[in-house]
Amino acid sequence: MASSPPPQRLLTPGPTQVPEPVLRAMAMPLIHHRTGAFRELFADVRLRLARVFRTRHPVLVISGSGTTAFEAAQASLIDPGQTAITCASGKFGERWQEVYEAIGVDQVRIDVPWGRAVQADQVAAALDGHRDARVVTVVHSETSTATVCDLKAIAAIVGRTDALLIADGITSVGAMPVEMDQWGVDVLVCGSQKALMLTPGLGYVALGERALERLAQTKGCPQYHLDLRRWLDAARKDDTPFTPPISLVRGQHAALELIEREGIENVWARTASLAAATRAALKAMRLQPVSDAPADSLSGAFYPATPTGGVDDARFRASLRDKHGIHIAGGQDGRLGNYAGRIFRISHMGHVSADDTLAALAAIETELRGAGASIYPGVAVAAASESLGSETAV
Amino acid sequence: MASSPPPQRLLTPGPTQVPEPVLRAMAMPLIHHRTGAFRELFADVRLRLARVFRTRHPVLVISGSGTTAFEAAQASLIDPGQTAITCASGKFGERWQEVYEAIGVDQVRIDVPWGRAVQADQVAAALDGHRDARVVTVVHSETSTATVCDLKAIAAIVGRTDALLIADGITSVGAMPVEMDQWGVDVLVCGSQKALMLTPGLGYVALGERALERLAQTKGCPQYHLDLRRWLDAARKDDTPFTPPISLVRGQHAALELIEREGIENVWARTASLAAATRAALKAMRLQPVSDAPADSLSGAFYPATPTGGVDDARFRASLRDKHGIHIAGGQDGRLGNYAGRIFRISHMGHVSADDTLAALAAIETELRGAGASIYPGVAVAAASESLGSETAV
Repeated sequence: MASSPPPQRLLTPGPTQVPEPVLRAMAMPLIHHRTGAFRELFADVRLRLARVFRTRHPVLVISGSGTTAFEAAQASLIDPGQTAITCASGKFGERWQEVYEAIGVDQVRIDVPWGRAVQADQVAAALDGHRDARVVTVVHSETSTATVCDLKAIAAIVGRTDALLIADGITSVGAMPVEMDQWGVDVLVCGSQKALMLTPGLGYVALGERALERLAQTKGCPQYHLDLRRWLDAARKDDTPFTPPISLVRGQHAALELIEREGIENVWARTASLAAATRAALKAMRLQPVSDAPADSLSGAFYPATPTGGVDDARFRASLRDKHGIHIAGGQDGRLGNYAGRIFRISHMGHVSADDTLAALAAIETELRGAGASIYPGVAVAAASESLGSETAV
Repeated sequence: MASSPPPQRLLTPGPTQVPEPVLRAMAMPLIHHRTGAFRELFADVRLRLARVFRTRHPVLVISGSGTTAFEAAQASLIDPGQTAITCASGKFGERWQEVYEAIGVDQVRIDVPWGRAVQADQVAAALDGHRDARVVTVVHSETSTATVCDLKAIAAIVGRTDALLIADGITSVGAMPVEMDQWGVDVLVCGSQKALMLTPGLGYVALGERALERLAQTKGCPQYHLDLRRWLDAARKDDTPFTPPISLVRGQHAALELIEREGIENVWARTASLAAATRAALKAMRLQPVSDAPADSLSGAFYPATPTGGVDDARFRASLRDKHGIHIAGGQDGRLGNYAGRIFRISHMGHVSADDTLAALAAIETELRGAGASIYPGVAVAAASESLGSETAV
């Protein structure tokens, strides 16, 4: 008798699982965007986003991906030929360096080995040595290496200078504590398809006071669609400069309602507890963690050595998917690191439960053992359950 | 007894009505974009798009709006300081001029009064006078003025030179006959939310042979996200350079299936017949058409004079919406024309039936009469029905 396919669990670090009410909201008949009904919805989405970003300042809603939104921030707040300090400790930090390379901004690069976090004193030293730096870019949660940096400390240091801090919060906002206003983060960028539980297609840019001032005084790099001035002017009228993805705005509204119902602090706590449980399970399986400063939004581990020469990444993840319905990510390549084929990554962001996580860890253990790894059966779920249980008991 | 609200008919020239199967496809659980399942879907969407564009060449699928896609084409195919011939006969032609202004490309502007079409001999004269022109931009169907130009004739003229033709087909592709390869259009741009019956959020750029050559030889204006080379390289592997709006790609697939089921020629014929019927109705109401070269994708008319000083646009459209469930557009402002408050526009693109159109015309007549316009009752629907009937009888 053929068994029915297992339930599908999307535990990739973006896109993430979209809750049923959000899918339903996206499927509602279209309304026009130049109407009172849409403007009201849009204003409410921006208000709820600001609460998740922990800011009183405007959050702009840009059509496109997180990359679109981050490039808009990069390009709009500095002129060509000026200097940016750019931190990279993984693929996404490197991407923001590529953007400045492409649009003609000079860079002082802070390159950190993959798996380690950018340190606040490295940023302080770079700022000291380059008083003309106009912006600092940093990735809060570097998804390619599952690493978090101390954004609060970095913001404090940048805040003492005339440079602006542009932080990539694409896999931190909504997943981990981020206090934009309290920490003094000038610009905070996010995308819809991570902890904010929507399909990809919207990028978000929050602009603090110093960023708004800079925007008013700077010409920026030559761009049209990504010139943040257009988006800010329109947002002040609860509008967008170009036709927005209406159905996605509706979906984001529904997702933000779910987040508020749970309470953002509870979402952070749930995410942290799933991350702790996963780290306990990886440790119990004696897997080497990817990061020495692990983020709570996702976890990564190196494949173990096996008698037959290691685990085949593609085959392993195909088995997880086909036999267990578990979708996780592999590793990525970059200029300064190469994790493709060497690691796997599992997301804790957004619509993920303890059950999802335990199911994933059980399947991971099974398939690693199947690939020849020496793991004592049951240790992954035992360790994760204990971690979850001890937290619940507190 | 309170009556229930009327059925809602979205007859704005974008966003347009999204068919039920497309909404359902958008609400399906998410799949990851770096999988065989997504790549297969994506390849099929691009193939079906190419059939609608009538091209054998690659169609790129860009996250964002039609504006995003058009700017990508503009920026990627010319270097800063080089010369573009830019045609404007309405708000969208003017927008493409603003883009080149923003990104530092020199322009020879062909400005045509609103309501008239750019003529092929104007383009020929400009090319004659500016042999160094690298591109010509033109809007096939200018939505702000409901005007169509002779794209085939313009393409023939540009094709004799070294300049590339970048055509805005945002409200023509899928609505009116456009033969990209046969006419020799080098670059054809469209958006998802018009005749392609999806919510906004995807832009399309089709690149002909000469455009592909140019792309390989040109550095382009400094952009990262909108550099078409990235999109082309990824597309050749059935991939996208950045996380794509997965749910929208699924929705577009469903919409393209509907278009193929009806047959693109039949879609064109239906659109043309609704446009003809609407023009007959507007004429019967003795309204002045906005355009002297009307497009079939939408129709526009000036508000009539009334004894009390004319029709109030906002009040008129609010009545249409609230009393009849009919959503149509007003006019737009631009550098060379000002139609705001002076015209109304009704779409024939995509998922629109004869019933929708007759209902809209009946409501328009009623509300114009209510606003004091001198119109003999019933003439709009009578004229439209006759037009539709005579076509059916043929």
